[in-house]
Amino acid sequence: MGIRFGGDYNPEQWPEEVWAEDLKLMKAAHVTMVTAGIFSWAKVEPRYGAWDFGWFDRVMDGLAGAGIAVCLATMTASPPPWLSRAHPEILPEDADGRRRWPGGRQHYCPSSPVYRAHAVRLVEQLATRYAGHPALALWHVGNEYGCHTRQCYCDVSADDFRHWLRARYGSVDALNAAWSTAFWSQAYGDFDEVLPPRTAPTFPNPAQQLDYLRFGDEALRACYLAEKAVLDRVTPEVPVTTNLMPQHKPVDAFAWSAHMDTMALDFYQDPYAPDDHIRAGYVFDLMRSARSGQPWMLLEQAPGAVNWRPRNGPKPPGAMRLWSWQAVAQGADAVLYFQWRQSLGGAEKFHSAMLPHGGTDTRVFREVTDLGRELASVPGIEGTRSRAEVALLADWHSWWALELDSKPSTALDHSRIALDHYRPLFEAGVACDVVPPQRELSGYRLVVAPNLYLLTADDAQRLASYVREGGQLLVSFFSGIVDAHDRVHPGGYPAPLRELLGLRVEEFWPLDEGRSVAVGDGVRTGRADLWSEVIDLEGADALAHFTDGDLAGRPAVTRHAYGRGTVWYVGTRLDAALMRALLDDVRAAAGVAPVLPGLPEGVQATVREGLGGRYLFLLNHGARTVEVGLPAPMRDALAVVDVKVGVGAGTVDRVTLSARGVAVLTEPGA
Amino acid sequence: MGIRFGGDYNPEQWPEEVWAEDLKLMKAAHVTMVTAGIFSWAKVEPRYGAWDFGWFDRVMDGLAGAGIAVCLATMTASPPPWLSRAHPEILPEDADGRRRWPGGRQHYCPSSPVYRAHAVRLVEQLATRYAGHPALALWHVGNEYGCHTRQCYCDVSADDFRHWLRARYGSVDALNAAWSTAFWSQAYGDFDEVLPPRTAPTFPNPAQQLDYLRFGDEALRACYLAEKAVLDRVTPEVPVTTNLMPQHKPVDAFAWSAHMDTMALDFYQDPYAPDDHIRAGYVFDLMRSARSGQPWMLLEQAPGAVNWRPRNGPKPPGAMRLWSWQAVAQGADAVLYFQWRQSLGGAEKFHSAMLPHGGTDTRVFREVTDLGRELASVPGIEGTRSRAEVALLADWHSWWALELDSKPSTALDHSRIALDHYRPLFEAGVACDVVPPQRELSGYRLVVAPNLYLLTADDAQRLASYVREGGQLLVSFFSGIVDAHDRVHPGGYPAPLRELLGLRVEEFWPLDEGRSVAVGDGVRTGRADLWSEVIDLEGADALAHFTDGDLAGRPAVTRHAYGRGTVWYVGTRLDAALMRALLDDVRAAAGVAPVLPGLPEGVQATVREGLGGRYLFLLNHGARTVEVGLPAPMRDALAVVDVKVGVGAGTVDRVTLSARGVAVLTEPGA
Amino acid sequence: MGIRFGGDYNPEQWPEEVWAEDLKLMKAAHVTMVTAGIFSWAKVEPRYGAWDFGWFDRVMDGLAGAGIAVCLATMTASPPPWLSRAHPEILPEDADGRRRWPGGRQHYCPSSPVYRAHAVRLVEQLATRYAGHPALALWHVGNEYGCHTRQCYCDVSADDFRHWLRARYGSVDALNAAWSTAFWSQAYGDFDEVLPPRTAPTFPNPAQQLDYLRFGDEALRACYLAEKAVLDRVTPEVPVTTNLMPQHKPVDAFAWSAHMDTMALDFYQDPYAPDDHIRAGYVFDLMRSARSGQPWMLLEQAPGAVNWRPRNGPKPPGAMRLWSWQAVAQGADAVLYFQWRQSLGGAEKFHSAMLPHGGTDTRVFREVTDLGRELASVPGIEGTRSRAEVALLADWHSWWALELDSKPSTALDHSRIALDHYRPLFEAGVACDVVPPQRELSGYRLVVAPNLYLLTADDAQRLASYVREGGQLLVSFFSGIVDAHDRVHPGGYPAPLRELLGLRVEEFWPLDEGRSVAVGDGVRTGRADLWSEVIDLEGADALAHFTDGDLAGRPAVTRHAYGRGTVWYVGTRLDAALMRALLDDVRAAAGVAPVLPGLPEGVQATVREGLGGRYLFLLNHGARTVEVGLPAPMRDALAVVDVKVGVGAGTVDRVTLSARGVAVLTEPGA
Repeated sequence: MGIRFGGDYNPEQWPEEVWAEDLKLMKAAHVTMVTAGIFSWAKVEPRYGAWDFGWFDRVMDGLAGAGIAVCLATMTASPPPWLSRAHPEILPEDADGRRRWPGGRQHYCPSSPVYRAHAVRLVEQLATRYAGHPALALWHVGNEYGCHTRQCYCDVSADDFRHWLRARYGSVDALNAAWSTAFWSQAYGDFDEVLPPRTAPTFPNPAQQLDYLRFGDEALRACYLAEKAVLDRVTPEVPVTTNLMPQHKPVDAFAWSAHMDTMALDFYQDPYAPDDHIRAGYVFDLMRSARSGQPWMLLEQAPGAVNWRPRNGPKPPGAMRLWSWQAVAQGADAVLYFQWRQSLGGAEKFHSAMLPHGGTDTRVFREVTDLGRELASVPGIEGTRSRAEVALLADWHSWWALELDSKPSTALDHSRIALDHYRPLFEAGVACDVVPPQRELSGYRLVVAPNLYLLTADDAQRLASYVREGGQLLVSFFSGIVDAHDRVHPGGYPAPLRELLGLRVEEFWPLDEGRSVAVGDGVRTGRADLWSEVIDLEGADALAHFTDGDLAGRPAVTRHAYGRGTVWYVGTRLDAALMRALLDDVRAAAGVAPVLPGLPEGVQATVREGLGGRYLFLLNHGARTVEVGLPAPMRDALAVVDVKVGVGAGTVDRVTLSARGVAVLTEPGA
Repeated sequence: MGIRFGGDYNPEQWPEEVWAEDLKLMKAAHVTMVTAGIFSWAKVEPRYGAWDFGWFDRVMDGLAGAGIAVCLATMTASPPPWLSRAHPEILPEDADGRRRWPGGRQHYCPSSPVYRAHAVRLVEQLATRYAGHPALALWHVGNEYGCHTRQCYCDVSADDFRHWLRARYGSVDALNAAWSTAFWSQAYGDFDEVLPPRTAPTFPNPAQQLDYLRFGDEALRACYLAEKAVLDRVTPEVPVTTNLMPQHKPVDAFAWSAHMDTMALDFYQDPYAPDDHIRAGYVFDLMRSARSGQPWMLLEQAPGAVNWRPRNGPKPPGAMRLWSWQAVAQGADAVLYFQWRQSLGGAEKFHSAMLPHGGTDTRVFREVTDLGRELASVPGIEGTRSRAEVALLADWHSWWALELDSKPSTALDHSRIALDHYRPLFEAGVACDVVPPQRELSGYRLVVAPNLYLLTADDAQRLASYVREGGQLLVSFFSGIVDAHDRVHPGGYPAPLRELLGLRVEEFWPLDEGRSVAVGDGVRTGRADLWSEVIDLEGADALAHFTDGDLAGRPAVTRHAYGRGTVWYVGTRLDAALMRALLDDVRAAAGVAPVLPGLPEGVQATVREGLGGRYLFLLNHGARTVEVGLPAPMRDALAVVDVKVGVGAGTVDRVTLSARGVAVLTEPGA
Repeated sequence: MGIRFGGDYNPEQWPEEVWAEDLKLMKAAHVTMVTAGIFSWAKVEPRYGAWDFGWFDRVMDGLAGAGIAVCLATMTASPPPWLSRAHPEILPEDADGRRRWPGGRQHYCPSSPVYRAHAVRLVEQLATRYAGHPALALWHVGNEYGCHTRQCYCDVSADDFRHWLRARYGSVDALNAAWSTAFWSQAYGDFDEVLPPRTAPTFPNPAQQLDYLRFGDEALRACYLAEKAVLDRVTPEVPVTTNLMPQHKPVDAFAWSAHMDTMALDFYQDPYAPDDHIRAGYVFDLMRSARSGQPWMLLEQAPGAVNWRPRNGPKPPGAMRLWSWQAVAQGADAVLYFQWRQSLGGAEKFHSAMLPHGGTDTRVFREVTDLGRELASVPGIEGTRSRAEVALLADWHSWWALELDSKPSTALDHSRIALDHYRPLFEAGVACDVVPPQRELSGYRLVVAPNLYLLTADDAQRLASYVREGGQLLVSFFSGIVDAHDRVHPGGYPAPLRELLGLRVEEFWPLDEGRSVAVGDGVRTGRADLWSEVIDLEGADALAHFTDGDLAGRPAVTRHAYGRGTVWYVGTRLDAALMRALLDDVRAAAGVAPVLPGLPEGVQATVREGLGGRYLFLLNHGARTVEVGLPAPMRDALAVVDVKVGVGAGTVDRVTLSARGVAVLTEPGA
């Protein structure tokens, strides 16, 4: 079947006359799958209970006739006007008690039983109607959960939260203990007294905030699961997914992955952000890792510009192809766009589409069509998988806790820190998984734990075991500080890791804005910013020290042999060069090699292999033309101009990649 | 009668003993007109229905006795406390549902039938009482409509909006089509489901937002018209106006002008903004053009500093005179201030007044008095008019649409862009009208159309006809993109102008913040920022190209011969020097000459002529003393030290203007 | 008894097993006093009326047994959840009508009769129960009044405000006159029409705002006084205080001081603010001056870092000692911290404590213990007092009025301006009192009046008398402008001071942001920013002039001989060097000498004397080691390494102070 290719299809925006042309042009563009129905609720049910599926039947039938698979949306992402008018209590409220009104989309309280009931009612109709339809390939539940309405603070949510707390804690005493309510006279006498963390005169209770983030994620998931339950019952053979968003704080991708038959992602590169392919790399690796290497779907990307940033640059020539192949190279089995045909009206009319306002005689349509053809030419990639020896740890609970207020520094940004640790691995060309701390780690040569501020004693124990059994571990500052309820682990920082790390942190010393300090290891020197701390060695060796500032002479980076393994600790944010050097050293110690040695700067290399063969992907993210030598002659799977013809029949032993160039190479015999 | 001179008069702030001194000092200052009663409601009606006009009778009689005309306010700008207490539902609400409370002014919902009824009741009293009063010269309805309360989003407004929509669209299907509600599942089943665009989880429907801006303007106008209807009935012989504000988005000056017997403007220069006289020039030209050249009134300006900017610098010596003359030079027949006597208390006590806290022995009072005398010395100016060969197009509907969210770039600022196009004409000393696209254009040699993002097919057709018949037209980027409902014109950008411009814009390429690109035409080179785009020539010639960046080598400026005329197109924001050079070229091609050739930099020249004679105004906005040669000997109408005595009896052939100097010259025989 | 030493003690956060260790470690740390019960309400009254004091009895008994005095909090700072659930109307609302919810602390409307009744009920219980308890030394009412909830705007507050206004004005006519309601049609017909200054479409009435700030202060004080009344009745022998905050706008420390048996302050230095010891100096002097030199209490400071700034640096080694001694040097008889034992959970778990998460083997605990020992070694300091010949004037009413909107400049920041005037005195080593304008001034050689924008005619008269009788006075720009109701004093600025100053200010000329002008006196030149003004001399001499800008050549600084004294006037904000030079000149003219002549830069010197002896404090705030020569040999009271052994038996005649070094010296015989 090959890599799925296509995009969101919103035929309700167009008169039916246009639909036939759509099908014709989709075929021309090598489209194999569309996502349909995302925003069709108001059209299939223009008034309560007045179902009108006829037009949608014709859409489905047309697509089936054209051999195009449908990722069928449950249509619940944007409730129709009649619903919010009849039930204004479904509208969400922010922490200041301000209602959020219709006019955009996602204007529903995730806890609303009214919204959920109407959504389930609609899904029942849809599933029953299209069960067995030849076009139906996949269910797409809701849309971008938590994109705009991350949390609701209304009275309905408050009530749902109290139910959630009763189930979680059983007794109000347990809640009081977990939330440390003895501070600031907050002890509850009854669950009924508890509220969401609405805006308070000062910092609301941190554990209450943390639980509300958990609850918010679960409230969104409950919406998803309620719809999925219908689908699983009515069409048990059809897989179910939803489109997650990258580094999206309200939605714990690891927790959701257990309920998704395939991971699916929307990713919108910012052409004006110089290193956005590294952010992409991180998120793609997380998608692939979330379900243990199972291929995932790039469910939305833009063919060109978006329309929701302050200034929306288009993707320059070649960029869309490069970034699409990056997804495939990192495990995607589908490349889809928002959307097929560019809207003439509405809030996203200036969002690029596969078929632009300018029609088929446009760069965008040509690039789309070329990519469709190219992807179709290598069907064997589908289903192949990658292997990694390095795991980067990520944990939503720690993220949520880290970014709460009333911290030593409010500048700790989980997304940024994750990329600080991912970048040196990506740039070194090392394959990497992104997994939660609860994942089995013994298969990895190296584990990197960036700022796991919240770390349970159990998870700390698992990290210690991993090292004790011979693993190599790198831990960054401000890790292992609090338990699941944001309570400091007693016993000196970071209590559950002290023995493992062979040190104690006596004091946090966050650096002021705009301030940096020098760090040196005797050979290299560089700068560090954001954070520093007073490290007392208790068995570890200092690899580098602060060389100026308040902590001059004190350890900045340490190493500790523990059991059969080794653990490194970084007590500050090193600059990119020092961080790269440190990761290179650690990697060398762990025996982790890059996918391809000697890669030119800016070139990404990945491998996917499986029944369909073994594929080497080379992607030039740099601005210069480079040459890449191959370890052995390989076949050029794309046979495009990027690739220099090499030795032997149909094989090459070096590849020339122009800026934004892509090569896909396979075993000669394949 | 001459140029009217005076200011807002608020005697209710002072004990009656002071009024006699007011009259005496007004005469000393050559005051001929005052605006009275703006904020008198609470004093003429201290309780519901308890009218107390006695004190105001005495004010009117005193002014009449002193021969000072009254521009009589309808007193409805700030409802008294008893009204908002009895009817809190008249208080406006913002898009977040936050009520705006009394304590300032303009705390009423423009759609409120309660407010309107009370306002009309008051106006009925006023008009009846002062009909025929010898002081009554002009009615001043309300005050600065939309200054603080630009739009209200309350339930009363929602209801009024639905009425407005029913009248506009007739059927909900028409509304759905106009608003493109098929996107994001927003189709309405009934008008009753529609709401104002209150804060939503994400971008509200753009056409809904656009219509709400239209509705907001009309709601304010309905308040004005309700009062005017009373005045027209009771005192049909007395002209009616209201004070508009400069570049004031909520109020479409062109639409209002049809209902104003004279245009009237409040303009507060910012002494700390280096080029504020250019902004003034633009707005003054718009005021003059709005009613086709009819003289207008500068109804408010500050004698010195204002008090509502963060840091309020006074007008340095000479600046107030210069800027007052600028208004007259650009067509004003009245120069009035806020306010006569500086308040001791309240929110504007630090706003300068004609009679400052320091009394008559102050620079401000001296400058006011000198200007009054000077204006009185040239009564012939009154009623004279100017002519322009250039029209700059301005359109509130396009402005409203342009600055909606979800655009390629949110940095497109209509006010700034208008001045970008006005500045090179102003600096070149060219007379210019500012008119809406619907105005008859055939009388102009040159038309400049800056960013007419929203352009109906009809208006586009009119522009094409204008060029076809021999007109010269300059169009700037991102024009002709959407129709009246913010729907993209199908057929490639800018569809309704493609044939006229001889080009197609394939892709918008807005530039990132802080980024610029080089532009060159083979002779000149410079920079451009904010915006660029991919222009495909379809008959036009490229005059200048981008010479670096993503679009290097592509056209930036084009020219197209069309019919008997020529049209230029600018696909980016050129820097000021390139823009000036381009406009100079275009002007030369159109045969448009400056008012006076060879003007020194910084000097503005305008001409007014009519039954009262022909007047040449020379205004030195620069910091240096300059000499201006006259085409022929003229008489110095002011006979002030600025003017060098020249050849012949009482005439000059050159004028020396010191910094901030002003000269008014007339035909020798006049 | 000596200087009290200790901190907030919150045993309810810990199991009872920990309490014994607390007492042991307190003794080790030389703790003599703790503040207990601040946040204990929810624990002593877990449900309405269900009192549970048993655990607190054990706390009190334990402390008494250990000989540790208790500053007993009234526990009313944070109402328990059951109270706000039963009475949501006690929750405060902001000016936008947004309720502030529980979850933090201080979530009560200060005007709420329900809150006050519950608070008084609790205090009655507490006072009755612990009257006569051997540990009870002091009552601590509430906590940091107005810290988070500065003002409430709810309907309950509105009602209370109206009562306050009726009492203040008697008639609505008097209110209308005081508030200048004739402006903007705001005249009230009845007190019932008056509202708090909730967010209005534009600037609310300034006098209404000013009165609301007064009312807000009094509403908080009414809470305090209601509790104090109970305490005074039940335990008349126990002194009562509350912890004020530094430069805290909502709370007029001078007005509160009359109701406090001892002044008490919370002061949290910002280790990343380079000159925070100068801010401390100002506030400490104000605390000492508020009750005419009576020793005060530093009731809270941080042992290390705080957790509520964006980036919280710890106090580097020695800084906590230095800054603690600064408080003592400036008159404190108590040095206490927040808090004894660092919390494991809640919103302040990362706020440093005397006993850190890391336990006793930490720098912080060592520094605390060392300081406790050191303070205990000089018990004679207690009760001694300082004398100053300079008074700096401060006035909350003027502060409130100065920072209202609709001013010539919104950049006038009272706190900053106060420090601009305090700094040159502090750096010159001059002892200074900070007092309100109503204080008897005849005892001072020099009075400095920074920006007394609001100055009643009576107070202006008192300043004139002071000078007439031989006093020296320095007045800064924008003083004496308005009366108690923010009404401009008629008669030219600054009317009530014109005769005294011998000048008139014709126009204010605030400088634009980022702009400065040159000022010179013929000898010195420098820059000035923020403000300038047009000064007409009427008897005064110009000491310095503006030398560029719009006011070049006009006076900037003047001097006027008046009666037997002299008055200086500064019409701009001089840079720090010019300001220091001016103050040095003025001081010399007034015959004011520093505490110790020839002090090295960065060293602070103060003297306290009384029955316990005479103490000279030397504090090195600079970064370098310096030597300080003493006028005569003195005894080193601390005998610490900082102090160089000098001449004679046990005496020194010079002291070497390392960076952050402290010396306390006494008379040889003491």
